[in-house]
Amino acid sequence: MANKWVYNFGDGSADGRGDMKELLGGKGANLAEMCSLGLPVPPGFTIPTEVCVAYYQNKKQHPKELTSQIQESLKKIEKKLKLEFGNPEKPLLVSVRSGARASMPGMMDTILNLGLNDKTAAGLAKMSNNERFAYDCYRRFIQMYSDVVLGVEHYHFEEILDLKKQDRGIELDTDLTAEDLKDLVKSYKAKVKEELGENFPEDVNEQLWKAINAVFDSWMNARAITYRKLHDIPESWGTAVNVQSMVFGNMNKESATGVAFTRDPSTGEKIFYGEYLVNAQGEDVVAGIRTPQHITIEAKKKNSSDSPAMEEVMPEIFGELVKVYKKLEKHYKDMQDIEFTVQSGKLWMLQTRSGKRTAPAAIKIAVDMVAEGLISKEEAIRRIDPMSLDQLLHPTLDPKAEKKVITKGLPASPGAASGIVVFSAEEAERRSVEKTILVRLETSPEDIHGMHAAVGILTARGGMTSHAAVVARGMGKPCVSGAGELRIDYKNKTFSASNITIKEGETITINGGSGEVMLGAVPTIEPKLSGDFATVMQWADEFRHLKIRANAETPLDARTARKFGAEGIGLCRTEHMFFDAERIVAVREMILAGEPETRKKAINKLLPMQRQDFAELFRIMAPFPVTIRLLDPPLHEFLPHTESEIAEVAKAANVDIATVKHRANELHETNPMLGHRGCRLGISFPEIYEMQAEAIFLAAAEVSRELHDGVIPEIMIPLVMNEKELQILRELIVGAARRVEKKTGTKLQYLIGTMIELPRACLRAGDIAKHAEFFSFGTNDLTQTTLGVSRDDAGSFLTPYINKGILEKDPFVAIDEEGVGELIQIAAERGRAAQPALKIGICGEHGGNPGSIKFCQKVGLDYVSCSPYRVPIARLAAAQAALESKAKKKKAA
Amino acid sequence: MANKWVYNFGDGSADGRGDMKELLGGKGANLAEMCSLGLPVPPGFTIPTEVCVAYYQNKKQHPKELTSQIQESLKKIEKKLKLEFGNPEKPLLVSVRSGARASMPGMMDTILNLGLNDKTAAGLAKMSNNERFAYDCYRRFIQMYSDVVLGVEHYHFEEILDLKKQDRGIELDTDLTAEDLKDLVKSYKAKVKEELGENFPEDVNEQLWKAINAVFDSWMNARAITYRKLHDIPESWGTAVNVQSMVFGNMNKESATGVAFTRDPSTGEKIFYGEYLVNAQGEDVVAGIRTPQHITIEAKKKNSSDSPAMEEVMPEIFGELVKVYKKLEKHYKDMQDIEFTVQSGKLWMLQTRSGKRTAPAAIKIAVDMVAEGLISKEEAIRRIDPMSLDQLLHPTLDPKAEKKVITKGLPASPGAASGIVVFSAEEAERRSVEKTILVRLETSPEDIHGMHAAVGILTARGGMTSHAAVVARGMGKPCVSGAGELRIDYKNKTFSASNITIKEGETITINGGSGEVMLGAVPTIEPKLSGDFATVMQWADEFRHLKIRANAETPLDARTARKFGAEGIGLCRTEHMFFDAERIVAVREMILAGEPETRKKAINKLLPMQRQDFAELFRIMAPFPVTIRLLDPPLHEFLPHTESEIAEVAKAANVDIATVKHRANELHETNPMLGHRGCRLGISFPEIYEMQAEAIFLAAAEVSRELHDGVIPEIMIPLVMNEKELQILRELIVGAARRVEKKTGTKLQYLIGTMIELPRACLRAGDIAKHAEFFSFGTNDLTQTTLGVSRDDAGSFLTPYINKGILEKDPFVAIDEEGVGELIQIAAERGRAAQPALKIGICGEHGGNPGSIKFCQKVGLDYVSCSPYRVPIARLAAAQAALESKAKKKKAA
Repeated sequence: MANKWVYNFGDGSADGRGDMKELLGGKGANLAEMCSLGLPVPPGFTIPTEVCVAYYQNKKQHPKELTSQIQESLKKIEKKLKLEFGNPEKPLLVSVRSGARASMPGMMDTILNLGLNDKTAAGLAKMSNNERFAYDCYRRFIQMYSDVVLGVEHYHFEEILDLKKQDRGIELDTDLTAEDLKDLVKSYKAKVKEELGENFPEDVNEQLWKAINAVFDSWMNARAITYRKLHDIPESWGTAVNVQSMVFGNMNKESATGVAFTRDPSTGEKIFYGEYLVNAQGEDVVAGIRTPQHITIEAKKKNSSDSPAMEEVMPEIFGELVKVYKKLEKHYKDMQDIEFTVQSGKLWMLQTRSGKRTAPAAIKIAVDMVAEGLISKEEAIRRIDPMSLDQLLHPTLDPKAEKKVITKGLPASPGAASGIVVFSAEEAERRSVEKTILVRLETSPEDIHGMHAAVGILTARGGMTSHAAVVARGMGKPCVSGAGELRIDYKNKTFSASNITIKEGETITINGGSGEVMLGAVPTIEPKLSGDFATVMQWADEFRHLKIRANAETPLDARTARKFGAEGIGLCRTEHMFFDAERIVAVREMILAGEPETRKKAINKLLPMQRQDFAELFRIMAPFPVTIRLLDPPLHEFLPHTESEIAEVAKAANVDIATVKHRANELHETNPMLGHRGCRLGISFPEIYEMQAEAIFLAAAEVSRELHDGVIPEIMIPLVMNEKELQILRELIVGAARRVEKKTGTKLQYLIGTMIELPRACLRAGDIAKHAEFFSFGTNDLTQTTLGVSRDDAGSFLTPYINKGILEKDPFVAIDEEGVGELIQIAAERGRAAQPALKIGICGEHGGNPGSIKFCQKVGLDYVSCSPYRVPIARLAAAQAALESKAKKKKAA
Repeated sequence: MANKWVYNFGDGSADGRGDMKELLGGKGANLAEMCSLGLPVPPGFTIPTEVCVAYYQNKKQHPKELTSQIQESLKKIEKKLKLEFGNPEKPLLVSVRSGARASMPGMMDTILNLGLNDKTAAGLAKMSNNERFAYDCYRRFIQMYSDVVLGVEHYHFEEILDLKKQDRGIELDTDLTAEDLKDLVKSYKAKVKEELGENFPEDVNEQLWKAINAVFDSWMNARAITYRKLHDIPESWGTAVNVQSMVFGNMNKESATGVAFTRDPSTGEKIFYGEYLVNAQGEDVVAGIRTPQHITIEAKKKNSSDSPAMEEVMPEIFGELVKVYKKLEKHYKDMQDIEFTVQSGKLWMLQTRSGKRTAPAAIKIAVDMVAEGLISKEEAIRRIDPMSLDQLLHPTLDPKAEKKVITKGLPASPGAASGIVVFSAEEAERRSVEKTILVRLETSPEDIHGMHAAVGILTARGGMTSHAAVVARGMGKPCVSGAGELRIDYKNKTFSASNITIKEGETITINGGSGEVMLGAVPTIEPKLSGDFATVMQWADEFRHLKIRANAETPLDARTARKFGAEGIGLCRTEHMFFDAERIVAVREMILAGEPETRKKAINKLLPMQRQDFAELFRIMAPFPVTIRLLDPPLHEFLPHTESEIAEVAKAANVDIATVKHRANELHETNPMLGHRGCRLGISFPEIYEMQAEAIFLAAAEVSRELHDGVIPEIMIPLVMNEKELQILRELIVGAARRVEKKTGTKLQYLIGTMIELPRACLRAGDIAKHAEFFSFGTNDLTQTTLGVSRDDAGSFLTPYINKGILEKDPFVAIDEEGVGELIQIAAERGRAAQPALKIGICGEHGGNPGSIKFCQKVGLDYVSCSPYRVPIARLAAAQAALESKAKKKKAA
């Protein structure tokens, strides 16, 4: 049997099916499927992607059977429609469209009205009894074909059209008469001849073949190549070509065209929702020259529209359309986005596909469809994009509001906020009754109180995982980071961008979901969580295997995390507790101390406060676990910077200013990320970790007594690179536990584990696991070290890297599976081989990224921990990951 | 057959052999071997390490057959010597000494003269006819035994002795009479009773057993445990115990004791070299109370000594000794360090072992012994410690000179130098007619001209691989880095340490081999390279597989490297060429440029200079390859810091000062090591790499024409993390080559490769290798990222880590084989799997470290590249590595 190079469809039957997208492309498969459902689809045929692949493999030669197969298909269409391709008496016109496996909107070319020449145009005029219509089709065809196939650019024709309109003193294309259009056709053809030295082709078969080749060629145009790179679509897939008979919504008053959604795409409400125009083409609905009318009477009333609804004007066609949309939704089991055309009183379906929708709509539709018995809970979970939940949890800009964007940075933490500009954490705190936006070159841990006080944060430097971004996400506060164009002048308290200078006290708005920075106050909309949201979360919890924890250290964060369904704290960064005004002095005294004894005295001032911190967290989170990371950042982060602060510290610590400066100088580090931090501090200054461990155990004993139930803290040692470090610090912690047990008479239960955040720790995980009850991957730092990229400095090259396709994704947002991922896998394997009961999770920023959560499921981790506002996203993503893994296993079995 | 728990030796025969060190320990094995050679060794027996192991396994119980076997052995000794243990008429005295498999000098305990009590002491006096001798032995025994076995500390006896000497009005122990000594014995025994409430044991068997157990117990004393940890000696080895009959060099005038070397240990000259004392004990030779006399007449004359040589005083014994030493050297095929005692005219050999020697001696002895047919060339190569060659290449402190050490830092670059203190690179250059020591908190690339001008560098911060250390080693200049106690006051141009303040212009001396910083000028000795050195190097070259290259960028460094035998340049750091006064302005203009075109204009000013740089290197190194790394450090390293420099740059670049500051601010990085550097610069600013590639190719074309031979540059892209980076930059370089080929009409040959210095690059080596002709491991940066340790900041915790045994070795000196090493192995395997012809080397600091070179041989690399002064070390180490690998293969076959 000869190869099948052409797939016919139309008139209630089709060669293809909806599940043949690989071969027929998305559009072709859906057309075939609609035909099989018995829906009225203008007949046509699809040239499958295989032909495109062969075309490129064989130096743009087609398979030899293709010509005859296309001829046969054309004949079938001619027979069905009683029209003939190229016959002036009853001309058949076709559209030629690309249709790839994955949607590539606007990337490739489309030609309509193919089959027109001087003779058939006259025939069409006669047949439709509408000369203006026929020549309008003709001049559009010449322009489109010349542009796409012949390479005569658009603007040539636009110029001629503009001249014509000037000439005639009219403004709208629709005011052109049939005669005008005939003139235009002549001028257009003359232009083509002038440009190419050849006549515009009159031969309809030549038109068809050249159009098909042009579609194949468009697969390799620059736009398409870039788009594929960005969306990871292999070049080898190729595109299909759809050749379909034309139907016309603009033929007469009994014709119309429209688009509709089977449910409301912005609320999810179960109402048929759409717009149409009488005597118009598809483009007109979108172009906005005429105002489209509502399809249903209900919608018309709701929107107080005067124009009649389709339900009134064409009641029969409307009835037919309702049957069609119901059939389609039931068949596809999803909300559909459909396109239709009515030609002289007959309904034709041109397209159906799953409709795009807002996050609230996605949730409502999924829950409703489960209730309607249309889809299963699993399917409902699969349907909702976890990242879209972000919209539900944060205020968003009112889409109707006007906005003046002055610059753009990275969308570092979602949500929108307006406030007056302040340039220091102190000022933010002082003016905290007003709403403030804290604007900084970059933030550091000592700005945290200001970040708490502000409603939003804007920084000039730093990437998606800079300090500002991470902390803001943790707080659920909008943040735009790395707005590189900002020029901040701290001295004069101004910043400028796009030649506009903003002074302290002036109002701006930031959109942390898009990175935009806007002048003045732009209205925002507050989020509301529906009952459907709770339903979806509950279903997600039924399916997922991964536990979801939150990264939190303040009572507020911990409560938010619980509210969003966190099953514990996966990362409590104790250093965030060191910056309080009353604490920082003791911390600084400790740093300035020369002797262990003085150091111990200073650090022990913090013990009662830390104990209280931990006790409160235990109370909020019980019975869930709380993982506390001992002090991690290098000590110089706590040192004062300004002269006045230095003087204050010198006084408090009873040393001279020179000593403070000398110590600061001594502690200065070239690369603090790789410096004297993490467990290295615990080894150098055991007093600090001893104090923290004691505070944790005292708090655990206290809360255990209150609750009549054991609180089981998980103590985490950061930045371990070999087993000896962990061994030494484990002994220190066990010692602290024994002392507290003796003191309080309470038997303590606790786990000791480590953050795995260095490549060496991954490789030596087998040794390290011998001394650990749990591992938690610190994927932020592991990414920094594995890739050699500082997240604070990455802004200058990471974004260009992603734009140029050197990196697929920001590795601080989505785990770099090929690099960091391999290390995680190695560590998990070696760790579990040495210690089968090892509990393993991740607590980097990646813990809230759906793709990375899928990876965690694949590698077999026990939990992910993310910022509180990411918990719902993580719950849903974990459910999807579990369902996907189940499906894969089933497939493999 | 019962287990053998005791190995006898003495009188020309022995149960053991020299190769039984694991069982008998080093001392026991050598004693057995000497006996088997028929040498006169006082008879005795060795209790093997197995007994020690059993002792600890069985709660300090001995195997039951041990008692009877020791009794038998004692009987044998008694029979041979016609003496009896504990018999007052003819008392046998023994020594009890530890003897582990590896030498642990001073770590464990020794007891001499065991077998003495009140009765046998009297007997010994009678037998030796020397009462003073007998009671001197007795009081020494009581003191030693009480200290080691009974735990009565040394100082108790010292006090009694001092009182006695005061009493008697004498100063030297030797002035004590027999009566005095008898008194002392009484007082000592009274003291023991007072301390313990028990009498000193009179039972000689009790003495013996307790002494044996004390030796076993000393295996687990704190000193020994620490020593083992530091030297990687397993606890499980245990120690042997040697019980040997005493011989006395202090019995009378016909007795003597001495130590000797079979060749001169400081020059290697083939002369018998040693010292002796008549009527003395071994201790006396070492203690320096009496001046030891020369053994040979020749040595006596050479040193113009008045005291008679042994050759004169005891000609027969001397003759016997000469026969013995020749036999020993011939047998062991190595220079021996021997100990002997003459008792009443009879020679006894107490010890022989391979003698320690200086580096020049090691070389001379090895070469001479090959000439004498005693050893093979392979063996000669194996014998020389590569690191010892460092002494030969650099000036060293005159060991006789007095020195006042004011502080100590890290021995960052070997050699000693004196000079006046300066605090800036500029000052060093200005005063370059004087010898200067550049003192800085730390150095940076812009200090290089000052480092060139100075004779030595001293820094307060930074580790063994800080900028100062790396650059100084490259220059072969002494450097002490990380002298943490230094307080440098740039403003007043002083530094202080140990309460001493040094002003600019005052003289200090630094010893880069020890880390010492000394007041004033301490005399130094210049190095001389012998012909034997060249011979050894030539032999090394015959055996080694690894090629040795040098890291060099200046013509001086390149010439030094060639002189030392480098086979090419493995790393030319082009950024070092950017700091010249006339270049830095163009570099800064380039950095300040906003547009690619302006940037290109500025950067192209550097092209002719870079071209000249490369041409000169090609000329010096031809026909060897030169690997040139394109620009690596972040641009801010080139920016000005002081206000006046900033003003200068602003003027030159024709921009305002604010712009310069803003740009500096923009370029500031929190962690420059992980920042916008390496190939990331090449991607962001392709103009820079284009200029460098063109300069390289123009130079290659020029020198190829001159030499009528192709120069094949190897262009190296730094800090690659994925294949796309390399792909893009490879295309850019190939483009530059094509342009130069067209311009010059020369067909160019070149290689393009990459530095592998990120964990991710190791993991993705298979992809990356597809675009590379060579890999060069940048082990400095790979260590930094794999361990998460900044070498600039490591000083504060790395040294304590090593001291506490958390890290075995400084990972910047010796490759961390378990972490970094696994990544190197993965990368080499994956790289070669993808590209079998891949050339692989390393160019980090580890390239000059013998242990790391062994690792490179094991992993199968093609070359190592190190600083020029390390090339000889690397050549020798590579030869040893090749021999070791050959031996291993032979063993496995």
